[in-house]
Amino acid sequence: MISDPAALLPWLALEAIPGLGPETARRLLAAYPDVRSIFAAPASQLKALVGDKIAAALAQPIAAATHRVALDWLAQPDAHLIVWTDPAYPEPLRALPDPPMWLYLKGDPATLARPLFAIVGSRNATPQGRRDAQAFAQTLAEAGLTIVSGLAEGIDTSAHEGGLAGNGAGVAVVGTGLDRVYPAKNRGLAHRLAAGGALVSEFALGTPPKPGHFPRRNRIISGLSLGVLVIEAAPQSGSLITARMAAEQGREVFAIPGSIHSALSKGCHQLIKQGAKLVESAADILEELNLPWVLEMAARNAAARPDPLLDLMGASPVGLDELALRAGLTVDSLSAMLFTHEMEGRVAVLPGGLYQRLF
Amino acid sequence: MISDPAALLPWLALEAIPGLGPETARRLLAAYPDVRSIFAAPASQLKALVGDKIAAALAQPIAAATHRVALDWLAQPDAHLIVWTDPAYPEPLRALPDPPMWLYLKGDPATLARPLFAIVGSRNATPQGRRDAQAFAQTLAEAGLTIVSGLAEGIDTSAHEGGLAGNGAGVAVVGTGLDRVYPAKNRGLAHRLAAGGALVSEFALGTPPKPGHFPRRNRIISGLSLGVLVIEAAPQSGSLITARMAAEQGREVFAIPGSIHSALSKGCHQLIKQGAKLVESAADILEELNLPWVLEMAARNAAARPDPLLDLMGASPVGLDELALRAGLTVDSLSAMLFTHEMEGRVAVLPGGLYQRLF
Repeated sequence: MISDPAALLPWLALEAIPGLGPETARRLLAAYPDVRSIFAAPASQLKALVGDKIAAALAQPIAAATHRVALDWLAQPDAHLIVWTDPAYPEPLRALPDPPMWLYLKGDPATLARPLFAIVGSRNATPQGRRDAQAFAQTLAEAGLTIVSGLAEGIDTSAHEGGLAGNGAGVAVVGTGLDRVYPAKNRGLAHRLAAGGALVSEFALGTPPKPGHFPRRNRIISGLSLGVLVIEAAPQSGSLITARMAAEQGREVFAIPGSIHSALSKGCHQLIKQGAKLVESAADILEELNLPWVLEMAARNAAARPDPLLDLMGASPVGLDELALRAGLTVDSLSAMLFTHEMEGRVAVLPGGLYQRLF
Repeated sequence: MISDPAALLPWLALEAIPGLGPETARRLLAAYPDVRSIFAAPASQLKALVGDKIAAALAQPIAAATHRVALDWLAQPDAHLIVWTDPAYPEPLRALPDPPMWLYLKGDPATLARPLFAIVGSRNATPQGRRDAQAFAQTLAEAGLTIVSGLAEGIDTSAHEGGLAGNGAGVAVVGTGLDRVYPAKNRGLAHRLAAGGALVSEFALGTPPKPGHFPRRNRIISGLSLGVLVIEAAPQSGSLITARMAAEQGREVFAIPGSIHSALSKGCHQLIKQGAKLVESAADILEELNLPWVLEMAARNAAARPDPLLDLMGASPVGLDELALRAGLTVDSLSAMLFTHEMEGRVAVLPGGLYQRLF
């Protein structure tokens, strides 16, 4: 995982350019796979690729001082920026047609490698809807899934609470910068999620809540997850956008039915008519997802590739400085990671301060 | 339509033989298409076909006195026995793998030629379920469908009431003899249905309610109908049997969802999981059935063949006695029918008392 500030600085500079969103960034990276080379590219090439204004901005020198807020934030031990080229970037998001280029994360990045499952629904949920969200989330979390939601009031909040009660973990994907918690009343919940799982955002630090950002947030909720359960949703609500994106992304969509006279069931009924699975219990979801198989695959993947760092080591002995360069890590954090691998028998320390991968 | 008691007597005699059900009757009719010839067949052939006991019973002479109850019942102007070989036998039932051989009907036989739609559900329905049954039935009846149900308490009763309110018609398929109304509290409803539509039963007059008869009744409810709507059903309930038969018969199955915490929604949710259409309104059903097309086809069929009697007349002039024989009708009822056709320009009376079909 890239955590060296020097390696992340060009990414912060790229992100800070007005009018440069993930699509433009993807175009630039397609032409210049090393992010640093974007800033060294000939002006004429850049102009042709992204227009005069952005090309002019890319010609400016990168100054760490300009990105002091982000660098300070990233200096926290549980604060991370996972960029598109990072080996730690979540594979399920990489497959999306419009993947985020920047993924801020507060908490444990390994949470994103667990089998994730999203529960979303109305902010104005009924008491029964909130109880259902809590109960489904807890049962699914106890069964081995980690619950993803959007930290909103109503169903999202209850789903996060249930997930935390089930396995102490959870992922909140938010539509603001990670230094802002929205809604404010969920600050405590956000801290518990960061402590036991991860808060995730595509948006730069300091980004306030904006209506247009929530649909973009929703594609990450569904994109990270094996499936999405919708509990209480009005027609034309954000939860239906998440469900539509989930279906487009090939994820399973589940919905809880209700009375035909309840406005908050109409969205779920619409989804079921369009092919979503009607569910009455968490067991329905576990059966459909074939969870034992999912958990076995996750364990096998983890065993096969416990850390991208081991790939970067290659088959020959390697020094600490060289490996820090390859991994984009500080020597300190690299030493800590190598110590763990040594203790667990995956790495041996050779004379001369060289490290040898053992399998 | 066969309404001559002499023509129906062999059918009554067949029905009265203990152990002779519709399947055995079908086997006999396959070998002897004219029901009267069954009673004249050589004993050895009959023994090989249906065993010693039934063969012995078939050897007994047919006595009208034995069937006095049925013949008296059939003498009522609105009482009918529609047998398997009758041109008036409903085509949709003919296509079933296990069609009834005898169909008692009280009311107007033409009701069965309308576009029919079944609504079934729990006897122990909730007030909301009963209101839904009433409202869906009324809207569907107003749109041109005639509602079929089972005359039971709960959803059935409300569906019949709604159907009558919508278009004054309806069909109740019951599991007892038509001279017995079950449950007794629905006697008034049964009379209104017979007056504006039809009561139908496969079972001989005098048959009391028996648990084993209700699933057989259910296959006729679904078999007569374009589709079946289930409103509130417990798991393993009779309504689910009707729905399963409907699906096997290629009929559309619809179900109304409800709270996952309501026992009476579990049956409907099970059906939706198995492929039934979730419906929130009568409009959902009308859209799925493509009702304008259904109504146009029904009108076209009615116009193309207003009466099987016209087919029986053939293209040449025919006398009253000969036609009465062909149609299995009394000369009196045949005269009344021919008079209507004459008034409406479909039949001309020729010199010598001969009748000529005009198209």
